[in-house]
Amino acid sequence: MFAEVTFIKKTSSSRCFCFIYFYFFADLLPASDGDIKTMTFLQEVVDILLAYIVESFDRETKVIDFHYPNELLQMNNWELQDEPATLDDILISCRATLKYAIKTAHPRYFNQLSTGLDMVGLAADWLTSTANTNMFTYEVAPVFVLLEYVTLKKMREIIGWSDGRGDGIFSPGGAISNMYAMLLARFKMFPEVKEKGMSSVPRLVAFTSEHSHFSIKKGAAALGIGTESVICIKADESGKLIPADLERRILEAKQKGFVPFFVSATAGTTVYGAFDPLIAISDICRKYNIWMHVDGAWGGSLLMSRRHRWKLDGVERANSVTWNPHKMMSVPLQCSALLVREEGLMQNCNQMHACYLFQQDKHYDLSYDTGDKALQCGRHVDIFKLWLMWRAKGTIGFEAQIDKCLELSEYLYNKIKDREGYEMVFDGKPQHTNVCFWYLPPGIRYMEDKEEKKKHLHKVAPVIKARMMEYGTTMVSYQPQGDKVNFFRMVISNPAATFEDIDFLIEEIERLGQDL
Amino acid sequence: MFAEVTFIKKTSSSRCFCFIYFYFFADLLPASDGDIKTMTFLQEVVDILLAYIVESFDRETKVIDFHYPNELLQMNNWELQDEPATLDDILISCRATLKYAIKTAHPRYFNQLSTGLDMVGLAADWLTSTANTNMFTYEVAPVFVLLEYVTLKKMREIIGWSDGRGDGIFSPGGAISNMYAMLLARFKMFPEVKEKGMSSVPRLVAFTSEHSHFSIKKGAAALGIGTESVICIKADESGKLIPADLERRILEAKQKGFVPFFVSATAGTTVYGAFDPLIAISDICRKYNIWMHVDGAWGGSLLMSRRHRWKLDGVERANSVTWNPHKMMSVPLQCSALLVREEGLMQNCNQMHACYLFQQDKHYDLSYDTGDKALQCGRHVDIFKLWLMWRAKGTIGFEAQIDKCLELSEYLYNKIKDREGYEMVFDGKPQHTNVCFWYLPPGIRYMEDKEEKKKHLHKVAPVIKARMMEYGTTMVSYQPQGDKVNFFRMVISNPAATFEDIDFLIEEIERLGQDL
Repeated sequence: MFAEVTFIKKTSSSRCFCFIYFYFFADLLPASDGDIKTMTFLQEVVDILLAYIVESFDRETKVIDFHYPNELLQMNNWELQDEPATLDDILISCRATLKYAIKTAHPRYFNQLSTGLDMVGLAADWLTSTANTNMFTYEVAPVFVLLEYVTLKKMREIIGWSDGRGDGIFSPGGAISNMYAMLLARFKMFPEVKEKGMSSVPRLVAFTSEHSHFSIKKGAAALGIGTESVICIKADESGKLIPADLERRILEAKQKGFVPFFVSATAGTTVYGAFDPLIAISDICRKYNIWMHVDGAWGGSLLMSRRHRWKLDGVERANSVTWNPHKMMSVPLQCSALLVREEGLMQNCNQMHACYLFQQDKHYDLSYDTGDKALQCGRHVDIFKLWLMWRAKGTIGFEAQIDKCLELSEYLYNKIKDREGYEMVFDGKPQHTNVCFWYLPPGIRYMEDKEEKKKHLHKVAPVIKARMMEYGTTMVSYQPQGDKVNFFRMVISNPAATFEDIDFLIEEIERLGQDL
Repeated sequence: MFAEVTFIKKTSSSRCFCFIYFYFFADLLPASDGDIKTMTFLQEVVDILLAYIVESFDRETKVIDFHYPNELLQMNNWELQDEPATLDDILISCRATLKYAIKTAHPRYFNQLSTGLDMVGLAADWLTSTANTNMFTYEVAPVFVLLEYVTLKKMREIIGWSDGRGDGIFSPGGAISNMYAMLLARFKMFPEVKEKGMSSVPRLVAFTSEHSHFSIKKGAAALGIGTESVICIKADESGKLIPADLERRILEAKQKGFVPFFVSATAGTTVYGAFDPLIAISDICRKYNIWMHVDGAWGGSLLMSRRHRWKLDGVERANSVTWNPHKMMSVPLQCSALLVREEGLMQNCNQMHACYLFQQDKHYDLSYDTGDKALQCGRHVDIFKLWLMWRAKGTIGFEAQIDKCLELSEYLYNKIKDREGYEMVFDGKPQHTNVCFWYLPPGIRYMEDKEEKKKHLHKVAPVIKARMMEYGTTMVSYQPQGDKVNFFRMVISNPAATFEDIDFLIEEIERLGQDL
């Protein structure tokens, strides 16, 4: 078997095009003589991917070869047909798909909280696809279930829960992790809600900062709590929740006869990167007996850094924590964990005892059949990429990576805070890698009419962003916030970025924006 | 660049072990001279995967090298460390992980509704990992967003909705797709529930067959409806919902002042593979103005088969349909679609207008920013594997694959229905590939005391299953159902399975069970 593999690998590159050209999917495994054809085909795909990867890291290439949707629809035949295509056509489709994709590994891709492409994480994801199994039972995912166990325990230790005790799950993203937390908080206070629904409980209210992620409201809408029962707490100028306002709103709600059940503090807000004051919040939660959740989807990873973890001081007092390794730790998408302090609660909250899946008379220790604590039935294997990357980097490797991103953002902040044409959205050094700023082109810079100036400034970031995409040189996000007009939100989670890339970004903004 | 790729590929196999041994993750890209080391490392991983794939299809290998959890924990060092490991250690970890994994591609792996490993689907998943992006906006996933649009439209055409109109989304599994449907049904009837929560609406009740999937109840618990508000409708002997009982229970609920809002019919139940009578159910739903959902997670794929799609007659009258290509169509996990007849409803139900993500002043057609209709914020790219497989097989390729699985199950049914020592759980030819049966070992076969016989029989399937796993020869599921003691539920979705594998399964059950 192995000899054959080697043989194929050595010869495929010269043979594959003519070799694959005349074949179809039906010639691949499980076809009886499909071994060689399969390996040739997969090797050909891998060659396309390897070339794409190397190219993605090359600053000379574009981040994106942008086309408008109607153009892109016409640039290839994307329609599905009744008849099969040749494997050669499949390779062509792979190349076309990558040609128009965003190069998320590119050192100048800063558009989202999740950027970069980790090589060990990628290898792990390829292995996960090849193993093609499901997390619901030990029976079908023995290794992955154990690795989830080991990794969640380690993450709870890092949070600071004694001996890493507690519970948790990897879910399909931070929004779902936050929804789990709200679901658990409700169940903890009113377990009857599982059977009897919201009509059996008093009016529940949740609290979160006005800067928090929209998934808190989305979760409340889905869970039948309603968005109006999510009370937005004022944040200070730098985006941190104001504890006094939280307490005031809790008391107000109680006076109305509502039941405060859930506070979601944010560790690393989406736009400003602010860390809510967790200790003060936890004091209030304890005083009023409210579940404290920490949405650390973005900022949770700073727990890995000895230099920065103080920003989450008090996280160990939370009842639940969302932490997305697919953001600041560059684990390939998706990888989001919900960590829960109380053991057994998730199981009680979500279990339905499906007897076709969680048979009670299996021959192994059933505590490893973790699927019934999930909202999902089948669950994708998201653990292996995190586990293998942790193995490859060690905790100190993640720490170094995170510290470097924060260093780059400090460099950016220092570079623009007093630079002509720039204005910071809030004062002081950013706590996370978010640097929020306006770029004022010369034509706007000295406008005297403040309203006119604001109106013009609001249009600057969208135009510069559109030009960035059309040139394909870099990508960075922008948005308005409250009464603040459109500003750039630069975030750095891409391990490929360097000081030079930060310099480039500033030059590029000025190049693309100077005529506005 | 391309010359370099070729060079690496040709030489890696002889150099890689010594080459990689001394290196660490930090030597890979984005390290400045990381190209060659990265390609060598990734090629080495691919070689491990290719060997595993070829081995997985070989009937001489085990489906699983089974170990109990406490043994497996000790068979390797799975713990996470502070210090980085060498890349050589990473390769060792990859090999160890695969050694103890289930070979889901194995022709004798029948354990779940999702079995098999499709080579084009796998290639597509590798590409998806490499592109490492997020479905929320066109901006970051231009091609994948278009492919989702094209594919959902095609699926709606196949359902029978005129011109493929409607809406839909790929979600993380059938349970979440079903939850979406329930959420939409509630919002359609009481849009105020989004803001005001369940306390603003009357007591809602949902209906589904007693054989339906547990996710309907799980969804109701999460959405604040409560499991007691899911009314289980009687099924006939073959597992189909009895429409008369549905109507009776709807009337009963209305008399109590409850509001029926949702009926979930099942197209392909999990255990029996039964198809609920959709036309009769839709008549009732129309009469009482209730949202009709079809949970076709398992059976929806039969729509691709001209021979079998009559089993879903009436599906075009549904308001929403769950259809999991990761089951009967062998798309790698996960790939689940929710299709919705009414356009715009998902957006209205779920949107939260996050201005940092869905900016309204972007330079392209914003209708392609589909993320705000999702419950998730970030969403994994699940579309490419389905799209590429469809491209490779054509509709007729999927049809042939599905028809073959149904043929195999009919073969199994015909083989055992009159065979000594077998008893079918329900009469008649199965409608899906589920074949439910008891195997009665000689020692039990002629027992006269019926209760004693049942008690013994209940223990047979778990023991045979445990032995299958210990020998690693095959895997098939079992469960009790209602008052029926443990029976085998054979399902065939694995395109690698042949008539000989069915013969093998029967021989194996008899070999492992004859002494019981």
